[in-house]
Amino acid sequence: MSDIDFNARIGRLNERVTAIWGEILDTSELVRAIRGGSVDKALYAIYMLETYHYTAHNARNQALVGVRHAELAPYAKFCFEHAAEEVGHEKMALHDVMSIGLKDHKFDIPQPLPSTEILIAYLYWVSFTGNPLQRLGYSYWAENAYEYINPLIDRLRTTLELQESQLTFFIAHSDIDADHFEEIKTIMRRTCKSEQDWVDVERVMETSLRLTGAMLEEVHREYELYRSGKSRRYAFLDVLREAPALAEA
Amino acid sequence: MSDIDFNARIGRLNERVTAIWGEILDTSELVRAIRGGSVDKALYAIYMLETYHYTAHNARNQALVGVRHAELAPYAKFCFEHAAEEVGHEKMALHDVMSIGLKDHKFDIPQPLPSTEILIAYLYWVSFTGNPLQRLGYSYWAENAYEYINPLIDRLRTTLELQESQLTFFIAHSDIDADHFEEIKTIMRRTCKSEQDWVDVERVMETSLRLTGAMLEEVHREYELYRSGKSRRYAFLDVLREAPALAEA
Amino acid sequence: MSDIDFNARIGRLNERVTAIWGEILDTSELVRAIRGGSVDKALYAIYMLETYHYTAHNARNQALVGVRHAELAPYAKFCFEHAAEEVGHEKMALHDVMSIGLKDHKFDIPQPLPSTEILIAYLYWVSFTGNPLQRLGYSYWAENAYEYINPLIDRLRTTLELQESQLTFFIAHSDIDADHFEEIKTIMRRTCKSEQDWVDVERVMETSLRLTGAMLEEVHREYELYRSGKSRRYAFLDVLREAPALAEA
Amino acid sequence: MSDIDFNARIGRLNERVTAIWGEILDTSELVRAIRGGSVDKALYAIYMLETYHYTAHNARNQALVGVRHAELAPYAKFCFEHAAEEVGHEKMALHDVMSIGLKDHKFDIPQPLPSTEILIAYLYWVSFTGNPLQRLGYSYWAENAYEYINPLIDRLRTTLELQESQLTFFIAHSDIDADHFEEIKTIMRRTCKSEQDWVDVERVMETSLRLTGAMLEEVHREYELYRSGKSRRYAFLDVLREAPALAEA
Repeated sequence: MSDIDFNARIGRLNERVTAIWGEILDTSELVRAIRGGSVDKALYAIYMLETYHYTAHNARNQALVGVRHAELAPYAKFCFEHAAEEVGHEKMALHDVMSIGLKDHKFDIPQPLPSTEILIAYLYWVSFTGNPLQRLGYSYWAENAYEYINPLIDRLRTTLELQESQLTFFIAHSDIDADHFEEIKTIMRRTCKSEQDWVDVERVMETSLRLTGAMLEEVHREYELYRSGKSRRYAFLDVLREAPALAEA
Repeated sequence: MSDIDFNARIGRLNERVTAIWGEILDTSELVRAIRGGSVDKALYAIYMLETYHYTAHNARNQALVGVRHAELAPYAKFCFEHAAEEVGHEKMALHDVMSIGLKDHKFDIPQPLPSTEILIAYLYWVSFTGNPLQRLGYSYWAENAYEYINPLIDRLRTTLELQESQLTFFIAHSDIDADHFEEIKTIMRRTCKSEQDWVDVERVMETSLRLTGAMLEEVHREYELYRSGKSRRYAFLDVLREAPALAEA
Repeated sequence: MSDIDFNARIGRLNERVTAIWGEILDTSELVRAIRGGSVDKALYAIYMLETYHYTAHNARNQALVGVRHAELAPYAKFCFEHAAEEVGHEKMALHDVMSIGLKDHKFDIPQPLPSTEILIAYLYWVSFTGNPLQRLGYSYWAENAYEYINPLIDRLRTTLELQESQLTFFIAHSDIDADHFEEIKTIMRRTCKSEQDWVDVERVMETSLRLTGAMLEEVHREYELYRSGKSRRYAFLDVLREAPALAEA
Repeated sequence: MSDIDFNARIGRLNERVTAIWGEILDTSELVRAIRGGSVDKALYAIYMLETYHYTAHNARNQALVGVRHAELAPYAKFCFEHAAEEVGHEKMALHDVMSIGLKDHKFDIPQPLPSTEILIAYLYWVSFTGNPLQRLGYSYWAENAYEYINPLIDRLRTTLELQESQLTFFIAHSDIDADHFEEIKTIMRRTCKSEQDWVDVERVMETSLRLTGAMLEEVHREYELYRSGKSRRYAFLDVLREAPALAEA
């Protein structure tokens, strides 16, 4: 693929990512709440628990692509190497949840919310079937999401007075993902050859980003249900309100 | 696990590996033929074609273990990293086959022999089911096999007047595997805790080594069938006899 | 499980099904369009193509549950028997699409819409992981959906002047599913024992029904995009407008 | 496929089955022991425990073929229907083991022997990869094995004075398999079209039958190790010697 063609393809993906993130950010109740500062630590906890859930599958479904498609050696190698780097990252998300005041409290981690489960299901689906290259569409936006997410995290951090040590997941990923993003573009240039490859990458990119947007909204709905007392699913987060700030770090 | 216990376990594995290799080497018709010098390039070709077949699955079944068992992060990381390093190694085996005089001849690579297929099947089986640690039993002997195999390869090399460039698979693996073997012992020390873990590792070690021995014997039987003209499965190797030595490199 | 407990559980499921169908029917643009009679054959075609896509996976993911959970013999038997009955049903959906005037026209069946792919992905997910009984939640509503769907199909049939021979998918399923629904309740009574079993069944029931609702809405959106000329994805359906009614049967 | 061609193909398979069974029966130490009457109930127990192990996977790997190949509807239906009929048959094998005098004794069922595990592994392998039709090669001989096995079972029955109620696995299968065998030929006639299909069926037939032969021999070796006291793997069978005959039924 010529540089011109490749750059045109990447330009097209970037346009779509920007457009969909725009839709998500503009219509999101979660984003509105974060920007408005009207949130407490329970929101961060609910969000990080879902992050914990889907992150626990990322290395697995990433490697699965290589397992079923090892003929294309450079791509399989990419899949296994990335999987190796992603292993155990969910533990950072869990650490961050616990750090805000839950460490001394026993609770069962709730099952993933339906929208999180749907996202996980979809990522396995695109990994075990169809064009093996299509999962790159997920990596493409996910490893380059911090442009969109960081302002929200910064706002949350100020509002909730979170320490760096309570944001290990986001800080680690901001660092890793800059490198990853370049690697993703390199492997895409090397492997995505046909029109269908780019169509498949774009489809998975859009769908997985929209499913992530739906997950953000469900996090917010659950937060509202929790705050209003209409759902006791997150009853174990009550301790965050009762605990004095000093004890939480 | 204490150093004493670990060393005792490793000592036990080493004893079993030595004993089973002993059985294989002592009774093997293939080994007798190689040692006797009564072989030609067709034998090397048949052997390397089977090596090509099973090697093409090693990265895949290695990664599969991590896909289904990512909770144990260090082990999953090991599986994915090793898989990344093994990707595409079958191409070395194929290169070596082609280099002995087949490069300019079109032929379909024959399907794996039954004993090779059985070995491949077994390695997937131990990778997708049972104790995820058990596949270490295969790695344990396979990444430390050169002590047993190198004398045979050296003999073959002399008999067949092979160049280094026609032995890339074995030369590359001798180098890689020394490191790998240390990594395998490190991860075993870290992960194999229960009695059952060691029993499972030993069972898979023994079974996969014996299946490899059976594959070596079938290679020899096929070679005899080819030489005697009783089977034309490897008819495309006839060119190795006809080609003058100079043209082969 | 006592009759009382079982009936209470089933009553609870029925309440939830009724409530979610109510939400779907009340808010659906597709339903509004069908009820208003403002639809043409293109809508039926788009809908049946998505039906074709997800139906092609139902036997497969149904059997998958039994493959990974054969210890519970009556349930595995149920899974395999149902899978056997569902095999090939997508061909009825395809037949119905073709029968409305597409038979003599060559076209590539478009890939599933994103919401259809998400539904398919989710059904594999609940089939290959988690509580093996949870997929019963999908069967529970899907094999009892005709109460909700038949009035819409009847309305479509009148509006589009469809013959029975153009509705084989729905007519066949209405018949089969009455029996299936009794079998599903029988196997649920026999296998769903724990609180968690019922929670899991209900979660999958709700999520898969909502995903189906989302698919219906995407069908309608695509229909509007097609009618307004904003999307040419379904350009091959233009022939339905041009063809005189007589030629369509 | 014409009747003549089909009958020729079937004739070829039958010849191969007869030849391989001939080899197995002629060289088998197990067969020699049974025919010589020099066996006791421990042999039957060891054999039926291995039968229990591999039978527990037959429905699962049979259905797996349909899961990955549902496009060919009649074959997928065959796979699911056969799987449904095979579910739970391992329980008959276990019942027969227990009935000979183990019912009142607690013991852990030993893991499958290596050769049994290899057979199981191979059957999954031919089910999840390669030509989906190839697994018919296993069914072809396995559902028609009673011609070869029944004389041995009859001899065992006389020697060990077993009741019909202690042979439920074999009696049930003799009945079922006659029907199954006709169904297998019917589906083969319908689906096996290409030369490669028949080659693949024959390869799997031969390999799976030879692996079964190897399992029989390992059963005998284990029996000898048990009788001579060299292995205590089957120590729980000691009770069969001590128990008076009357108590065993």
